[in-house]
Amino acid sequence: MNRFELSILGCGSAFPTLRHNPSAQALSHRDRVFLVDCGEGTQQHYRRQGLKLMRLQHIFISHLHGDHCLGLVGLISTLGLLDRGGEVIIHAVPDALRIFPPLFETFCQELPFEVRIEPFSPFKSATIYEDDTLTVKTLPLKHRIPAAGFLFEEKEAPRHLLGDMAEFYKIPHYRRAEIKAGADFVLPDGTVVPNSRLTRPAAPPVRYAYCSDTAYNEKLIPLIEGVDLLYHEATFGDEAVAMARHTLHSTARQAGLMARNARVKKLMIGHFSARYNDEETLLAEAREEFADTILAREGLRYSF
Amino acid sequence: MNRFELSILGCGSAFPTLRHNPSAQALSHRDRVFLVDCGEGTQQHYRRQGLKLMRLQHIFISHLHGDHCLGLVGLISTLGLLDRGGEVIIHAVPDALRIFPPLFETFCQELPFEVRIEPFSPFKSATIYEDDTLTVKTLPLKHRIPAAGFLFEEKEAPRHLLGDMAEFYKIPHYRRAEIKAGADFVLPDGTVVPNSRLTRPAAPPVRYAYCSDTAYNEKLIPLIEGVDLLYHEATFGDEAVAMARHTLHSTARQAGLMARNARVKKLMIGHFSARYNDEETLLAEAREEFADTILAREGLRYSF
Repeated sequence: MNRFELSILGCGSAFPTLRHNPSAQALSHRDRVFLVDCGEGTQQHYRRQGLKLMRLQHIFISHLHGDHCLGLVGLISTLGLLDRGGEVIIHAVPDALRIFPPLFETFCQELPFEVRIEPFSPFKSATIYEDDTLTVKTLPLKHRIPAAGFLFEEKEAPRHLLGDMAEFYKIPHYRRAEIKAGADFVLPDGTVVPNSRLTRPAAPPVRYAYCSDTAYNEKLIPLIEGVDLLYHEATFGDEAVAMARHTLHSTARQAGLMARNARVKKLMIGHFSARYNDEETLLAEAREEFADTILAREGLRYSF
Repeated sequence: MNRFELSILGCGSAFPTLRHNPSAQALSHRDRVFLVDCGEGTQQHYRRQGLKLMRLQHIFISHLHGDHCLGLVGLISTLGLLDRGGEVIIHAVPDALRIFPPLFETFCQELPFEVRIEPFSPFKSATIYEDDTLTVKTLPLKHRIPAAGFLFEEKEAPRHLLGDMAEFYKIPHYRRAEIKAGADFVLPDGTVVPNSRLTRPAAPPVRYAYCSDTAYNEKLIPLIEGVDLLYHEATFGDEAVAMARHTLHSTARQAGLMARNARVKKLMIGHFSARYNDEETLLAEAREEFADTILAREGLRYSF
């Protein structure tokens, strides 16, 4: 059973092409949709994929380059035209507090909800979001301006109580929560039924790491080790490794290296430079380091 | 021979739909392209129509609602990635001087050209652009915030000197400019050859008026009288005339009425509300007032 669905809204880089939109992706988990980055045009690409704006409450912005955040004002304005209350929370570096509120004041008047910018430090990993099933942590990146990726991590779920055992031992409902949490069950005659007989472990938590934009950064490895899916930027190919170094971006090979070193389960590469007319070479280079690599593309939905 | 080509990049209104982009259009005249309004995503729609960013130097913004200008920062940033010098001039209401320079500073660093915002008053018609063949005048509109449309007007061209007459009378080259300007030609024997025998009038100047967003505004009539093409907003249909009045927009019928009263040659309606799944009803209502009406749509190229 898949727990996440990732929708790629844009996987191009700064120079827009006719093939790629600027960075944005929507991550669905249960009844929530999280938006990760919000390049120009994101609201239209979001709706084009049949996603519901009403379900969107948390927006995570990796850094303040235009191709990752210039769709924010239009999106908030459109959310304001929907009949929704509550609040919309934008997680971003502190500089967002200087840039966006004046724009919301100019272009998003009379919003029926609060817009709150929750600043995070891009320099150390910290939990910036938590609900009953999920946490989101920042992943410090190495880019020309302060930038962070995001780790979406399911919480450890309680063990599953086996239905036939619960019935056989006549376990009352008020005891079940503690048994799911790991307790044994004591029968009226004092016999102890060990927890392992009554429950099976829940499926392990699923984890997703988003790392864009960044140079190859070894410090990420312990933070993203073993994630189910790593989205890593791969702006350039081998032939432009000097350009990658200069602009603090990664090559596809470096993305593959990161996936291998962090022993992730799957790698998706994106944030492709406009110089490539197709990304097959990038894919091949990444796969030389890490076989289980796929290409991001607009419209792709990936469940895991 | 057509002098203008109008490319519709977006003809929706504030709430984006899957059918329409926010307002933007490119008007080509000789080797220049003028951008009129620049909603979110304009740079991508511009390039999708095969238009060249290098040819773009003047951008005209009707008013500072997001659906008419939120694509500006991304566009300027992208122009900055091209190897071009000179300057880019944004014609807009004075408030643009407060809003955009800080954004250009944040998102468009190290531009290889100057960006200049040329403020205009939205309250009186004035010439805000002029080159050797064209002028652009503002058209004060009636909207919730200060707004102006634009009148693109070819200059009166000199008369055409008839080739066979020039040869027959042996008119020397250095006399031809004054004859094109209307002078008669005097033969060596003193005979006066009247100008009307030597020249024919140039084709009359072509004019284009862009009026969005605006309530029905009678004051526009003398300013746009007889234009070759009028683009007029038609956000709503008859059934929503109260809504049009309340939001200072026009109905399709009012756009038709404006076209009829201003005796324009052709009307194109646009800026359609998201409530309409197709605009045939709007078209029919406009045509009841002015038969020669067409619908704007993304991708439409109209030559005149």
